[in-house]
Amino acid sequence: MTDKDSTSPSGKTNPGNFFEDFRLGQAIRHATPRTVTVGDVALYQGLTGGRFALASAATFARGLGYADAPIDDLLVFHVVFGKTVPDISLNAVANLGYAEGRFGVPVFPGDTLSASSTVIGLKENSNRQTGVVYVRSVGTNQRGETVVDYVRWVMVRKRHPDAPVAEELVPATAPAVAVESLSLPPPLPTGGYDWGLAGSTAAWEDYRVGERIDHVDGMTIEEAEHMTATRLYQNTAKVHFNQHSEGQGRFGRRLIYGGHVISLTRALSFNGLANAQRVVAINGGRHVAPCFAGDTVYAWSRVEQMSPLPGRSDYGALRLRTFGVKNRTAADHPERAENGKDYDPSVILDFDYTVLVPRRP
Amino acid sequence: MTDKDSTSPSGKTNPGNFFEDFRLGQAIRHATPRTVTVGDVALYQGLTGGRFALASAATFARGLGYADAPIDDLLVFHVVFGKTVPDISLNAVANLGYAEGRFGVPVFPGDTLSASSTVIGLKENSNRQTGVVYVRSVGTNQRGETVVDYVRWVMVRKRHPDAPVAEELVPATAPAVAVESLSLPPPLPTGGYDWGLAGSTAAWEDYRVGERIDHVDGMTIEEAEHMTATRLYQNTAKVHFNQHSEGQGRFGRRLIYGGHVISLTRALSFNGLANAQRVVAINGGRHVAPCFAGDTVYAWSRVEQMSPLPGRSDYGALRLRTFGVKNRTAADHPERAENGKDYDPSVILDFDYTVLVPRRP
Amino acid sequence: MTDKDSTSPSGKTNPGNFFEDFRLGQAIRHATPRTVTVGDVALYQGLTGGRFALASAATFARGLGYADAPIDDLLVFHVVFGKTVPDISLNAVANLGYAEGRFGVPVFPGDTLSASSTVIGLKENSNRQTGVVYVRSVGTNQRGETVVDYVRWVMVRKRHPDAPVAEELVPATAPAVAVESLSLPPPLPTGGYDWGLAGSTAAWEDYRVGERIDHVDGMTIEEAEHMTATRLYQNTAKVHFNQHSEGQGRFGRRLIYGGHVISLTRALSFNGLANAQRVVAINGGRHVAPCFAGDTVYAWSRVEQMSPLPGRSDYGALRLRTFGVKNRTAADHPERAENGKDYDPSVILDFDYTVLVPRRP
Repeated sequence: MTDKDSTSPSGKTNPGNFFEDFRLGQAIRHATPRTVTVGDVALYQGLTGGRFALASAATFARGLGYADAPIDDLLVFHVVFGKTVPDISLNAVANLGYAEGRFGVPVFPGDTLSASSTVIGLKENSNRQTGVVYVRSVGTNQRGETVVDYVRWVMVRKRHPDAPVAEELVPATAPAVAVESLSLPPPLPTGGYDWGLAGSTAAWEDYRVGERIDHVDGMTIEEAEHMTATRLYQNTAKVHFNQHSEGQGRFGRRLIYGGHVISLTRALSFNGLANAQRVVAINGGRHVAPCFAGDTVYAWSRVEQMSPLPGRSDYGALRLRTFGVKNRTAADHPERAENGKDYDPSVILDFDYTVLVPRRP
Repeated sequence: MTDKDSTSPSGKTNPGNFFEDFRLGQAIRHATPRTVTVGDVALYQGLTGGRFALASAATFARGLGYADAPIDDLLVFHVVFGKTVPDISLNAVANLGYAEGRFGVPVFPGDTLSASSTVIGLKENSNRQTGVVYVRSVGTNQRGETVVDYVRWVMVRKRHPDAPVAEELVPATAPAVAVESLSLPPPLPTGGYDWGLAGSTAAWEDYRVGERIDHVDGMTIEEAEHMTATRLYQNTAKVHFNQHSEGQGRFGRRLIYGGHVISLTRALSFNGLANAQRVVAINGGRHVAPCFAGDTVYAWSRVEQMSPLPGRSDYGALRLRTFGVKNRTAADHPERAENGKDYDPSVILDFDYTVLVPRRP
Repeated sequence: MTDKDSTSPSGKTNPGNFFEDFRLGQAIRHATPRTVTVGDVALYQGLTGGRFALASAATFARGLGYADAPIDDLLVFHVVFGKTVPDISLNAVANLGYAEGRFGVPVFPGDTLSASSTVIGLKENSNRQTGVVYVRSVGTNQRGETVVDYVRWVMVRKRHPDAPVAEELVPATAPAVAVESLSLPPPLPTGGYDWGLAGSTAAWEDYRVGERIDHVDGMTIEEAEHMTATRLYQNTAKVHFNQHSEGQGRFGRRLIYGGHVISLTRALSFNGLANAQRVVAINGGRHVAPCFAGDTVYAWSRVEQMSPLPGRSDYGALRLRTFGVKNRTAADHPERAENGKDYDPSVILDFDYTVLVPRRP
């Protein structure tokens, strides 16, 4: 909302920042701390259907050296991401990418998450209608410990095309998070890992670089589901919730929060990656095409890299690229269009992340 | 259900009370105590999308002198209200109004809520088909402390038009809850209030009587959402759940529980009223028009009254009137139709309530 | 998925077992332990709308001698059932029946459930395309105590029609669980049972064998609701979730998990059976016809048997048969078609179970 829409003497409603409002180095402390609980865990379970044993069972988690079942890494990401929306992307045209995402200390039920961001890049587009804002966002718990930090860039509208723009910079981001910089889980107690309860005997050593895994199952999304998930994260981006306005917009309908698609592909990936208990890094990610209610999401993954962990033989890291596709199976691993350059029209998500998988004892 | 529908030797199913079943002064103890938990908090969050920091974060709540994040006031109201339905409004034609609603001690996860009502008014309608029942309902926690009490009146069908009717009385209700009678929050510790985390710097002093605030955002409602919310409150009113019967009824479809609309407008009101952390009174309320799945709800508020709290300088009270409107924005503050008397056809809710907002330190 | 669909060097995705993969006496330990919490309780409440006081309120539960409100028996059943799906029924054509279901120790928030099964019967169908697998499944808590065990039989596809089949056996199952073998609740403290809060004064003695109770209310099911419930149970059966594949299948749409229909009929049965606080046995059950989103479920029950509990006068057992019907009321207790043999076309569930009801003090 712009000020003229309100009869308030002062602008009490949040119009969001426009491109020309950002400054390089600007630090933004986001509103709405959020205590995450077993209630959030249950609702996330109901909306995504995950089956990774670590997030599912306190007993399994304790066998792995955790004090309790940690909150699903992507749920943590979505809650932190949600806090950044009112300040960073309320006037966004598109969420362009992620990089250098690193999960920190695990989050447990009862922890309270807050978020802050720093503007690390700005680049006006040549049409002067929009520009790209790069931020590094950090989520912390009630002790100030980092639970996740990541870079994202987003195309934001300008309020006025002629508004002068502050100093510009396109920041360099790493193509992937180095294994050396990962925050690692507690040491795996000998015999602590129950492969049978986890649902698969495939250890880290059983994967190979270049391997492609079809996750087989498909999940159809309903309006009530993606909206409930997105409200759970207190993500207020209007395009997800308002059929009255979106019906007159670009797509004629509500757009599903890309993070919900990420969560669904992660849940589907259990079928083939059941032992990938933790997501420890987000190397990159692209919401290739929009997803709408009624679409059915399938997923497949390619192993991009396999890294032992420095000084540890209990877990190994797999860098994965998981592709979300819609309204067709992923059995033939759709990725590129016939021209070899564009994405296949069915691809909606290209997500590059790193998981930990136990090594064979 | 009437007794003749059952082959039970005794009527074990609840036919609900009809107008002629009520007596002035009658005390009704309602069934189904309900322990509210962080699970309810999460689901309420997912269904309404609220962002008020007090209900969102235990850390923020402790900064304000609470032991923990209290359960959202309106969630408490809905749970208590739900208990009254099987006895008061199972045979209701319309929920006509509320008055003298006062929130008592805060409710925390783990508390168990119960409800009772007293019939304080009865007035048969001239057609002898229906009558208006006035009740004062009280919700209590497991220690017997009042968590909310309110008057509501509802039009209830008669079983038989000629049934004689007990003593009649139309009770007087106060136009608004006096500030002196409010149950107040713990004293705000110096420096306890973090305006940045709350999401707005607008203090009580920044509002003025007559100010109108467009809450900007809109929220489309799905069948699964309002039904899940209403079942969460154990509210059994049939019109919300049964498409088979409602498809043949007045509207041809399920009617959304008016309380869900209240909750949505409260959640939307964050944008403009972010520091209105507590609802302390419901002065009145009217469900002006029905709301259905697929409708998009917008809201705007007018400040009706500003009251300092007796003997306290930490918070001030704002009496608000929040209007829920559907399928159009509230930027021009729709209220009255062109005749100046009826409501504008877009208005679905006219809710008069009192919130507490911190004062500038 | 069959191995040929994957380019994995080893089959990491679960193709499920086909009929010829099972062996008599085979013991299967199922994956994905699950800690159930107040979050699950709230979501189950929101999705089914139950009102039984024992599961609703910790205070009421303590009055009955429980340490806390136990998790709803059917929620326990669904969680355990869900674990068995990837091993037993991923390639199922139909879930044929249940028998000898017995609930064990009560489950409380924070308990972790696991499941295992033993193959107790195998019978190939004459077409050699499918066969019936009989398993006894056991759910246990983190202390290894049984929380529920039951027999189910399911028609499973063969991978290859000519595959030879192991030793066959059709096991005998009891028509009903004997009252002597039930796991009983704690003794009811004198005066512990509050009939008013429970919502009905109908004691065990008030029912009679042959009595039929129409539960009056109807509940329409949305896609988002049954999918969320089924994901909550980590039940992965594809037919419930994938419109893309099911749209081309037998029904042209997603099939609702039969357990969701069981839960809805149980919730509806409060109206007439409000004091049936615990389900202690599942004697049998048949999903007579499929249920789809948009259908409205009604229910009625017949009392099949009344049994005092050996050595106890606080509760009595009622063996019930509850019929779920769709898109018509159950006021006339639909059961059989005109030929007296088939089910009435409206019947979707025939569920035979045993509940405990307090006796008149």
